[in-house]
Amino acid sequence: MEKTKNALASLTIMTNIVLPNETNSLRNLFGGELLAKMDRCASISAARHCERRVVTASVNHVSFDHPIPEGGIVVLESKVSRAFSTSMEVYVDVWLDDPINQKKIHTNSGIYTFVAVDEFNRPIPIPKMTPESEEEIQRFDAALRRKELSLILSGRMKAADSVELKKLFSN
Amino acid sequence: MEKTKNALASLTIMTNIVLPNETNSLRNLFGGELLAKMDRCASISAARHCERRVVTASVNHVSFDHPIPEGGIVVLESKVSRAFSTSMEVYVDVWLDDPINQKKIHTNSGIYTFVAVDEFNRPIPIPKMTPESEEEIQRFDAALRRKELSLILSGRMKAADSVELKKLFSN
Amino acid sequence: MEKTKNALASLTIMTNIVLPNETNSLRNLFGGELLAKMDRCASISAARHCERRVVTASVNHVSFDHPIPEGGIVVLESKVSRAFSTSMEVYVDVWLDDPINQKKIHTNSGIYTFVAVDEFNRPIPIPKMTPESEEEIQRFDAALRRKELSLILSGRMKAADSVELKKLFSN
Amino acid sequence: MEKTKNALASLTIMTNIVLPNETNSLRNLFGGELLAKMDRCASISAARHCERRVVTASVNHVSFDHPIPEGGIVVLESKVSRAFSTSMEVYVDVWLDDPINQKKIHTNSGIYTFVAVDEFNRPIPIPKMTPESEEEIQRFDAALRRKELSLILSGRMKAADSVELKKLFSN
Amino acid sequence: MEKTKNALASLTIMTNIVLPNETNSLRNLFGGELLAKMDRCASISAARHCERRVVTASVNHVSFDHPIPEGGIVVLESKVSRAFSTSMEVYVDVWLDDPINQKKIHTNSGIYTFVAVDEFNRPIPIPKMTPESEEEIQRFDAALRRKELSLILSGRMKAADSVELKKLFSN
Amino acid sequence: MEKTKNALASLTIMTNIVLPNETNSLRNLFGGELLAKMDRCASISAARHCERRVVTASVNHVSFDHPIPEGGIVVLESKVSRAFSTSMEVYVDVWLDDPINQKKIHTNSGIYTFVAVDEFNRPIPIPKMTPESEEEIQRFDAALRRKELSLILSGRMKAADSVELKKLFSN
Repeated sequence: MEKTKNALASLTIMTNIVLPNETNSLRNLFGGELLAKMDRCASISAARHCERRVVTASVNHVSFDHPIPEGGIVVLESKVSRAFSTSMEVYVDVWLDDPINQKKIHTNSGIYTFVAVDEFNRPIPIPKMTPESEEEIQRFDAALRRKELSLILSGRMKAADSVELKKLFSN
Repeated sequence: MEKTKNALASLTIMTNIVLPNETNSLRNLFGGELLAKMDRCASISAARHCERRVVTASVNHVSFDHPIPEGGIVVLESKVSRAFSTSMEVYVDVWLDDPINQKKIHTNSGIYTFVAVDEFNRPIPIPKMTPESEEEIQRFDAALRRKELSLILSGRMKAADSVELKKLFSN
Repeated sequence: MEKTKNALASLTIMTNIVLPNETNSLRNLFGGELLAKMDRCASISAARHCERRVVTASVNHVSFDHPIPEGGIVVLESKVSRAFSTSMEVYVDVWLDDPINQKKIHTNSGIYTFVAVDEFNRPIPIPKMTPESEEEIQRFDAALRRKELSLILSGRMKAADSVELKKLFSN
Repeated sequence: MEKTKNALASLTIMTNIVLPNETNSLRNLFGGELLAKMDRCASISAARHCERRVVTASVNHVSFDHPIPEGGIVVLESKVSRAFSTSMEVYVDVWLDDPINQKKIHTNSGIYTFVAVDEFNRPIPIPKMTPESEEEIQRFDAALRRKELSLILSGRMKAADSVELKKLFSN
Repeated sequence: MEKTKNALASLTIMTNIVLPNETNSLRNLFGGELLAKMDRCASISAARHCERRVVTASVNHVSFDHPIPEGGIVVLESKVSRAFSTSMEVYVDVWLDDPINQKKIHTNSGIYTFVAVDEFNRPIPIPKMTPESEEEIQRFDAALRRKELSLILSGRMKAADSVELKKLFSN
Repeated sequence: MEKTKNALASLTIMTNIVLPNETNSLRNLFGGELLAKMDRCASISAARHCERRVVTASVNHVSFDHPIPEGGIVVLESKVSRAFSTSMEVYVDVWLDDPINQKKIHTNSGIYTFVAVDEFNRPIPIPKMTPESEEEIQRFDAALRRKELSLILSGRMKAADSVELKKLFSN
């Protein structure tokens, strides 16, 4: 019987203080540095889900709407949002926690895809993931639309063959 | 009269050696570290185009198809691909250059969006960009479709209101 | 009426991958690098408890019993264990999480003392902390003995004047 | 005949400039970064004494009484203070050297314990250390009391069985 | 027939943003950090020329005449300037590019010598380099004088045996 | 009366362990990283001599004859070798210390020139330096020849006007 895990089993929390070397000339965190932290956090979630070595396959569209200042406390939380046969999607949420002003702001989210690999760097099967909370179920469902979109954008699926996305655009 | 620049004016080349701290347990460059390097390279292109401070607004879908080993030479080349009124798209190409085996492999591309800001972090207008080469024209045209997609995905435009994308899915 | 917070309000989780630059010639995490990570995690707990800037006053005796290998996932969890008038004790637990072999090992703990300071670096009062779980109560009680010991070791209290410690040695 | 070395043979001096990435929001050196530097300096002293690979076993109580500003020159000096059968204690003194104002301030000290290990990470015997200066003799004697205290605090010796410490508390 | 390459084949461009950790107390790039970046850039040129692993043999006299501020864009460009039998000279030019003020300043140059080595770290022959542009020819010719000077300064050639340099000083 | 200091007053010792990020593909310290460490050490000597902020003016010819492996202990020792009116020369010696094999190898030396600057980055006068040991006297004398050579190489003195160097080449 196939192994199944819930989303919580891959929950990873990574708290950091923004250091001077990570900031631009406005003294805010570089977007790219945040992408790198999100990848590192997400890769631990992926490893926890599939119990194997993992490598990043892709990152989805990520926007940066809220500046994160030098010295700020950044909290990243990631969980596997859906497992496919040999890849899995990980959802990362980012907060700026400002205990002095008692504010906690959700600055952005990012979606990464990982594959599990053996010691020769070849993809291997991934256990199923069963979503439980409402948000987990919502993200689980959306993951399929994102996968279709990704296949279309990379030219591996024709737009006309998509199911979920075609619905979206044909109304 | 409005200022116009060509793509070449923003060309930025960033050559790096992959250091041990940037690699995963397979001794290949972390996907996230590459995203950070790409952001840094792209941000210089953006600053060169608009001659102002810039901040990353978003990164488009990026996939990692080719491992880049520790000690490898990574070459990033970025150019502004299209300027909108207060944002600009930058296209980054990544190569793994292996002079010992005389191979140069295109490992992946990434598309970043930047806004130019004044000293109070407020967006300011951006000069137009005129594409010249065939590739530049192609990327310039595709930039509009990507902008529409981005607006739809972030909920700021309805799928039904898109022009370019609707065409793609309705056939 | 004086403000009181529970221990959970200061819980900080910091997950990291051990990088090559942090390891000794046996490819295990340097003890000193772990002390630095623990300080950073603990300082966030301290800031969350007192909602002010904090600086490290001291670190208690810490032992390193279990090697943490390069590439390993280190999880630090810290909570304020007791608040005194102008200082607070933070307890940090460290785990090595090995999802591939499905092991999670408690490698060690550390106890740090912080003071909250105003913008001129002067100490300011700290809210009380009320322990709730059994472990929190145990650590809360032990904190007083540690404070006495610290005062004696630094020559600011005479051994003969201690209450808790004298009991320990006089039996 | 057993090998004996003096303390000077392990003297290690490590001069550093405090970099922005090592400082907190008050622009002073993080306590934890100083602990990491002290560990690195002490580990070289330990290797010089026993002429083998060494790993940190523990760090003693360390307090931070004097802020060390960004750009400041930090001087660490470490020497083995006592060698036991398979472990050795290293004493590290830290100074802030300010040549512009012609001040040199002793900011704090730290005491680290190291074990020497063979290539399989197993402890191996350590040469004796003979103190020479008055300060070296004083620290050599105190090392025994610290070892007893450490054994008691870690539960490996009963307080009632201590010799040196019992004397201290029973008066 | 022996292999010959032109200078352009080794052109390496390395664009960087000056980070806080690389600057002194005046917030300008440390001279030593620039030397390290120049070495890294030059070593890639050397590897591209000889298609083998390379190690730095020496760096020539380098002066720092123009401060490079934190956040500044530094552009390094290096090319092999002359190949000898088992060593090659690489010329590195450094610019400070300030797109906001539309200035590009040549801050300094540096000359590094590299040897190509096999896997046992033994020197191996290097392909010839044919200069093409006027500047390349000028630098190619000067390289011989520099080599003579270097041999004299290191005591491996007598001043009296030099050809090029003797001419310079005997007028 | 003018202030005079001896060389010892500027002695700076900087001990380091070579980290993975500082090594090339042969796992030896990059030449450029060593140049950066030497600059940092020398700049502290310069600051200690003149008790002011200092900036690197130039580095003299430095050769790398001995590889320094990852994990190796590098010891840098620097002292001011001669003070001119507004610049000073600092001599840095580098050793590889291998306590396990009980070897200490002098790997290379480097000579840096610094200027002291006020808060507006303008050069200011420097106290005289009186050499004492035989080696210090030798280096003090050679410093004048190096200064002449530097002036000639940078085109600020004609070869024919040199005193020391002309003697060297005209025999």
